[in-house]
Amino acid sequence: MNLAFLGLGNMGNFMARNLLLAGHNVTVWNRTRSKCEEFRALGARIADSISGAAREAEIAITMLADDHAVSGAVLSAGGVAESLAPGAVHVSSSTVSVALSQQMAAVHDKRGQAYVAKLFIATAGDSAALERCQPVFAAIGQRTFVIGPKPELANVVKLSGNFLISAVIEALGEAVALTRKYGIDPHQYIAFLTSTLFAAPVYKTYGGIIADQRYLPAGFKMRLGLKDIRLVLAAAESVDAPMPFASTLRDHLLAAIGRGMEEEDWSALAQHAAHNAGLK
Amino acid sequence: MNLAFLGLGNMGNFMARNLLLAGHNVTVWNRTRSKCEEFRALGARIADSISGAAREAEIAITMLADDHAVSGAVLSAGGVAESLAPGAVHVSSSTVSVALSQQMAAVHDKRGQAYVAKLFIATAGDSAALERCQPVFAAIGQRTFVIGPKPELANVVKLSGNFLISAVIEALGEAVALTRKYGIDPHQYIAFLTSTLFAAPVYKTYGGIIADQRYLPAGFKMRLGLKDIRLVLAAAESVDAPMPFASTLRDHLLAAIGRGMEEEDWSALAQHAAHNAGLK
Amino acid sequence: MNLAFLGLGNMGNFMARNLLLAGHNVTVWNRTRSKCEEFRALGARIADSISGAAREAEIAITMLADDHAVSGAVLSAGGVAESLAPGAVHVSSSTVSVALSQQMAAVHDKRGQAYVAKLFIATAGDSAALERCQPVFAAIGQRTFVIGPKPELANVVKLSGNFLISAVIEALGEAVALTRKYGIDPHQYIAFLTSTLFAAPVYKTYGGIIADQRYLPAGFKMRLGLKDIRLVLAAAESVDAPMPFASTLRDHLLAAIGRGMEEEDWSALAQHAAHNAGLK
Amino acid sequence: MNLAFLGLGNMGNFMARNLLLAGHNVTVWNRTRSKCEEFRALGARIADSISGAAREAEIAITMLADDHAVSGAVLSAGGVAESLAPGAVHVSSSTVSVALSQQMAAVHDKRGQAYVAKLFIATAGDSAALERCQPVFAAIGQRTFVIGPKPELANVVKLSGNFLISAVIEALGEAVALTRKYGIDPHQYIAFLTSTLFAAPVYKTYGGIIADQRYLPAGFKMRLGLKDIRLVLAAAESVDAPMPFASTLRDHLLAAIGRGMEEEDWSALAQHAAHNAGLK
Repeated sequence: MNLAFLGLGNMGNFMARNLLLAGHNVTVWNRTRSKCEEFRALGARIADSISGAAREAEIAITMLADDHAVSGAVLSAGGVAESLAPGAVHVSSSTVSVALSQQMAAVHDKRGQAYVAKLFIATAGDSAALERCQPVFAAIGQRTFVIGPKPELANVVKLSGNFLISAVIEALGEAVALTRKYGIDPHQYIAFLTSTLFAAPVYKTYGGIIADQRYLPAGFKMRLGLKDIRLVLAAAESVDAPMPFASTLRDHLLAAIGRGMEEEDWSALAQHAAHNAGLK
Repeated sequence: MNLAFLGLGNMGNFMARNLLLAGHNVTVWNRTRSKCEEFRALGARIADSISGAAREAEIAITMLADDHAVSGAVLSAGGVAESLAPGAVHVSSSTVSVALSQQMAAVHDKRGQAYVAKLFIATAGDSAALERCQPVFAAIGQRTFVIGPKPELANVVKLSGNFLISAVIEALGEAVALTRKYGIDPHQYIAFLTSTLFAAPVYKTYGGIIADQRYLPAGFKMRLGLKDIRLVLAAAESVDAPMPFASTLRDHLLAAIGRGMEEEDWSALAQHAAHNAGLK
Repeated sequence: MNLAFLGLGNMGNFMARNLLLAGHNVTVWNRTRSKCEEFRALGARIADSISGAAREAEIAITMLADDHAVSGAVLSAGGVAESLAPGAVHVSSSTVSVALSQQMAAVHDKRGQAYVAKLFIATAGDSAALERCQPVFAAIGQRTFVIGPKPELANVVKLSGNFLISAVIEALGEAVALTRKYGIDPHQYIAFLTSTLFAAPVYKTYGGIIADQRYLPAGFKMRLGLKDIRLVLAAAESVDAPMPFASTLRDHLLAAIGRGMEEEDWSALAQHAAHNAGLK
Repeated sequence: MNLAFLGLGNMGNFMARNLLLAGHNVTVWNRTRSKCEEFRALGARIADSISGAAREAEIAITMLADDHAVSGAVLSAGGVAESLAPGAVHVSSSTVSVALSQQMAAVHDKRGQAYVAKLFIATAGDSAALERCQPVFAAIGQRTFVIGPKPELANVVKLSGNFLISAVIEALGEAVALTRKYGIDPHQYIAFLTSTLFAAPVYKTYGGIIADQRYLPAGFKMRLGLKDIRLVLAAAESVDAPMPFASTLRDHLLAAIGRGMEEEDWSALAQHAAHNAGLK
């Protein structure tokens, strides 16, 4: 299959690599050109421009940082929408706002292109388009959980998932601060939790980080967490849904940044809770 | 073993029954005497008073509703503390305040009695006393996770666990309200969550209830949830630990009660979130 | 002076009228043309287009609903920025985002025009431009409190003021709900407060409305309050400042809308508090 | 009039002094006896015990620190309730819980004594008893605002007032942090606010402290503020009223204490907001 892949950050690099290994013809593009070079050896074509990458693609995959980057690469002159052939598919894997996802859906639709959102395993779009993307999804190796025909629903679901993760972090942070103040060892406490009702990957992963107070290097920085919570609040506000826990998370992420934790993992929300409880 | 069992509510009934089936000599007491009668057939002795039950017990187990009931049964004249022999053990399984647990520990200590707290599987107390209670714990059939030598730590851990559960309910409630507003089916959404990062019993159980909107009959009523959140906030305040999520939970439980959901399960926190989002 | 006045809503109507009464040459424009007719009798010229109004104005005043309306009228082709002569002044009196105010400042600056923000009495902009606007401000009759040379600071101050008002409403709402539950008459309670520490216009005005439960007709509807709180949160987020009270206010405004109070005055936040406390 | 005065802290000292200056026969008692000595010169009798002070008093006034102190002095053996003659009046001016105020009302009633609560100007109790206290109130020099016949209502009103003050502090703190981040001078900002809608003593007093960042010496320490917010939340919870702003205030007071501001004035809530916004 002729594929275009735009955005070779950590996640994009990994995905593009798997598409090449699966034998697809992949043209890669990245804003910083140097990141493309390593893909030459894997058989990729390197495009000088977005349109150069998208023009002949059956499927173009974008994996970019945020609304600003995606909107620039997809909707501006010479962008993905203008360059893709009618009938081609755009798979957006970036965590962007629901509003931008809706806007892209409309633009692609007008141009006779298909638009699919796939964020981690949450996938949404027209079923025929999803069908055509199966080889791509298979190569990337993630399971595909179809949310429905409207692409932006994949964004809603992904954002809600990140909200749920951050709520786990905050709740664990408060509970660990409380129990530490009573002299309970956090490793033992997390072991207790994750061997009972809370035997889930998210409690194990973040519980371990919190017990270890291991917030550097960051897997997912404070500002990325803040961006996602801002997007979930915006998505909720546009349908008149209050989300009080999300509001609190937003305030705490901002305060943690204000307190100097900008470079730390977003799970340092728990460190913020510990400091507020007077723990060092 | 000679055991006294005080408090034959739902949970107490179940525990006392298992102790009898395991072959122990159990003397039961309940404030409402009629609840004792069914135990006669199982071989229990029925006591007319707390002291009648506790006087000859090697181990007395209390399973009562709240601080008021426990304090009345244990610390007043003719109560468990006054009646137990020196060297006997009091196992408290009621969800009471950390402060009352500390007070009972001090009183029993002065009288040369042992005091152990066991709440669900969280167990704390002097290791020799815990050793002596093994046959009781074995008969009740729950695992035993030892928190440490100070009995009140079992209360802290149990309360923190109930806080974590209610935080899951609230977070799920907000996320389900959001996704419902976008037209996503809640059963499908919960299936998505619990097949990935959130594959834990607590998400499955409460996710199912929330998707079904099945809040009656209540497994654990609003007011019981409110009691536990109040106790966790009190335990936290006494060590100067703020718990913002717990504060929000307290406010929402009160508001849900004010809105007429008093008889519903505490997971109707999610219904409150749905109503606030304008969902019926 | 040759003035253009754009936006004849409640507030704009009042302001344009005063400018005419003060003897200025005013050209009015309004999206819905019919609202202009009544100004003919007062001596106004009526413009068919924004550029028709702004072209010859020394000062153009905009008093429009929100970011969308202001951005459309000021920054699009044929808008105020394109139409005003170099050296002319744009006075923006609409409650818009800090970001849009910053953007307009940059655009006008590039075109050699002056840009001043005046929101209620909070005024900001270049001092020479403010000087030139004095006859306009005098005619409108509000005091002028100069915040500084950067126009967007007037927006920040105005938004923060609306935040402070809504915080008063929420706090009064909670306090009145509490005291009503104890049987204290709200009129008597408000009289007590406003005769002591809280002897301020905002407590008297909103205290009276809350005691009377007089939320209709709305002076300032829920959605307008929500818009301003959203703008204050956005302004705060862009400088990394958490505002937990503002977050709570946003959640409560959304919930009140979800509960069916959309048409009511934003002070019905107090009604929401009353309902959550189980009061009818 | 024969008066007993118990509790010679800052406020008590001032009140007792005024009663002596007004010519009453005052017997003073204080837990730390040395604080009594200075009253000898003013004509006071000094009592060795509470009962020694209360026995012959027509009116006994208590001005003590908290529930613990008041309960000890009033309800224990040899306390005010046991010592006062039938028909005498107990005026409680301490900021105690609504629950304790209700309990004292019941105890005094049983003994044929009158019980009146007067907290700052909020006064409540049987009207005949209030009438008899007029000379006392007049001597103390505060206005008297009668809330109603149930004494605990004075406690509810006083606590709600302290809640409203702390809400003003928090709201000002957030608004000042926001505007400082935009470079607006806090003194100028407070001047703006207090010359318009917010022209009230509470905004002037606390606005000045916040603009000056003058939190030491404390007029009212963090822990006292925390105590009052805890009492207002308890009073609200016992009538099923959620108070989300009060919950947030409680969390922030705890966090400010955890962050090392224990000795500062409770208005350092604003400093906490500033720190969370990354301001020094």
